[in-house]
Amino acid sequence: MNLTVLALDEPTPSFAAVFTRNAFPGAPVLIGRQRLEAPTLGAVVVNNKVSNVCAPGGVEASERLCAAVAGSLGLEPGQVLPSSTGVIGWRLPADALVGAVPEAVGALQPDSALPAAEAIMTTDLYPKVRRVELGGGSIVGIAKGAGMIEPNLATMLVFLMTDLDVPREALRACLQSVVARSFNCISVDSDTSTSDTVALLSSRKVPCPDLAAFEAALGQVCTDLAEDVVRNGEGVHHVIRVRVRGAPSEELAHGIGKAVVNSPLFQCAVNGNDPNVGRLVSAIGRYVGAHAPELELSRCTLRMGGRVIMEGGTFRLDHETEKLLVAHLKEAELYASTPPPDGLTFRPPVTYPPHERSVEVDVDLGVGNASCTVLGADRSHEYISENADYRS
Amino acid sequence: MNLTVLALDEPTPSFAAVFTRNAFPGAPVLIGRQRLEAPTLGAVVVNNKVSNVCAPGGVEASERLCAAVAGSLGLEPGQVLPSSTGVIGWRLPADALVGAVPEAVGALQPDSALPAAEAIMTTDLYPKVRRVELGGGSIVGIAKGAGMIEPNLATMLVFLMTDLDVPREALRACLQSVVARSFNCISVDSDTSTSDTVALLSSRKVPCPDLAAFEAALGQVCTDLAEDVVRNGEGVHHVIRVRVRGAPSEELAHGIGKAVVNSPLFQCAVNGNDPNVGRLVSAIGRYVGAHAPELELSRCTLRMGGRVIMEGGTFRLDHETEKLLVAHLKEAELYASTPPPDGLTFRPPVTYPPHERSVEVDVDLGVGNASCTVLGADRSHEYISENADYRS
Repeated sequence: MNLTVLALDEPTPSFAAVFTRNAFPGAPVLIGRQRLEAPTLGAVVVNNKVSNVCAPGGVEASERLCAAVAGSLGLEPGQVLPSSTGVIGWRLPADALVGAVPEAVGALQPDSALPAAEAIMTTDLYPKVRRVELGGGSIVGIAKGAGMIEPNLATMLVFLMTDLDVPREALRACLQSVVARSFNCISVDSDTSTSDTVALLSSRKVPCPDLAAFEAALGQVCTDLAEDVVRNGEGVHHVIRVRVRGAPSEELAHGIGKAVVNSPLFQCAVNGNDPNVGRLVSAIGRYVGAHAPELELSRCTLRMGGRVIMEGGTFRLDHETEKLLVAHLKEAELYASTPPPDGLTFRPPVTYPPHERSVEVDVDLGVGNASCTVLGADRSHEYISENADYRS
Repeated sequence: MNLTVLALDEPTPSFAAVFTRNAFPGAPVLIGRQRLEAPTLGAVVVNNKVSNVCAPGGVEASERLCAAVAGSLGLEPGQVLPSSTGVIGWRLPADALVGAVPEAVGALQPDSALPAAEAIMTTDLYPKVRRVELGGGSIVGIAKGAGMIEPNLATMLVFLMTDLDVPREALRACLQSVVARSFNCISVDSDTSTSDTVALLSSRKVPCPDLAAFEAALGQVCTDLAEDVVRNGEGVHHVIRVRVRGAPSEELAHGIGKAVVNSPLFQCAVNGNDPNVGRLVSAIGRYVGAHAPELELSRCTLRMGGRVIMEGGTFRLDHETEKLLVAHLKEAELYASTPPPDGLTFRPPVTYPPHERSVEVDVDLGVGNASCTVLGADRSHEYISENADYRS
């Protein structure tokens, strides 16, 4: 179990956070929502292994930890944001965590976010850090999360730090807008976590040259981290990027994209490098039939790897297309499964993604101007092995 | 590829059918919706392997097949209901199917529905036939379907036959009502097929004693067949039965039940006989947070295998409970995975379910009187192997 502290040199009024909309939020999320009203924030304390959700005395345990961190740093407890990830249902071992605070505070250093990105990992294969420079300052973000990933208006644990001086209200508006098109557009397994948290803290040391440029830079960091989360998703062999356009609304485009990446049958077909595009069509039809049955699909054009597979609502398939699609799928594969020693427990043979290619799906509904890009992943033996035996 | 014909001695005006709400329906579904307006129906023709969805010339190919069957049976083409299941995207091999009609018609016999139930199978492990007797008559149903199963207002291929005389309008009302609480309450993989069809034909030979008794009997046949479909779902090791009660509406109860059985993480935990009830809570919270965020969950009580695991919104977990839950999961297991010869391609070691036990989940929201029972299944290596390599 790791305890990690992130701290600013001085508490800042410029901080923003968005949390899971899961109706059984963790105790740190309940506390975090209150912290949004605090005048300033000075530190974040994160533990992995136990997520502290609906456990008896959960809020009290998290507050004890915040008080211990505050004591070590010369802050008030209300200036510390708690965050937990791990098994749901277990109690937070508060005594042990409070005992570990001096060491975690002692490990603070100003040079690199990498140790923090490594310490918050659970089933993640590799740490996720992204950075963009802007006008003499920068934005740095770290993220963890590989399973239970389908953020709804917030996501996983993501901590973003910047020295650019953006006032609190503008910072929060930027974060909301950026999260909507980055973390809210990904899914590994359609399960929305009880602990999802994205927090953004500004030390205000560097003047911000331009708010729009800041939002664009923040968007870049968040989009990159969101893709990192998917690419490192549990058992992910292929990242799937679905661009939906020509839609009557962004909401519908988002829903169709999510329906495609969350279709177990399409996920399995991609896993097997099998261009079973019928399952792609079925997933789109399922969503539209359930949520927009009046929508006319006769102008729908589908592409995969740039190749047209459906036009005017009718399939355009032949052996040449099939061969090209297989090649596209194979090129996007991060690794192939290898038979495990015990015959049952599959483990990924990679520790870092060998490339950044994706399976490219393009859905043009041909009826409007709205669009959305959604990232998801295939479903593999490694995911089953990871999650059929997570705790034991 | 199998061609199956079901025929009545005489065409009947008493027939009912419900079809998929997938927005890319198969050609037989498009034709079937028209047949609902026909004065009488005399036969059903079913093929497996190719589902005839969005393929060029699909409707014409299905109509040719109907005409061939009608010619052999002395019917009009409009008295034959077509139905197809299998790969989406491929063309129906109409010439070959028309050539196979004489043999299929020659195989008609009045004794048993079992050969028909066997002939319509695709990835099904065993045929599904259910029968209930009522007032000197009976209702017999056959079903196929193991993957791409989350019916939306219709389902899979299900053919129900009765000699009880129920007029067309009453028959259709009964079918709608029964389907809503049987086939629409199951999910194997949350993928709604493009071909789902439930058809019910009455030969009208036996007077119906009581319409309510008929609906109850039809409900029994459909509920049993729906459970058969889940128990025989692709790679299913455990059937999961989720009863949601104390809900403010049946719709919400249905949604929560579906969210639990469709949670990949809960599915994997059940597969591994791991009572990771945190994932159960996360799945409920995900659905409620997204669809009824105003709902208060502080009176929620959860049970698994009859054991209380959460009360008043707080977990009640200890080692004794954990042991009981593991035992409950193991007792409900249909089979365990065995390492495959090639190290990768898992196949179920059973051809028929060894028992009819399920993992029993009870969710009492404590805020209303509505309830719903939903059936689903776990997620296994066998499902991945089946669907990563379906066609090749």
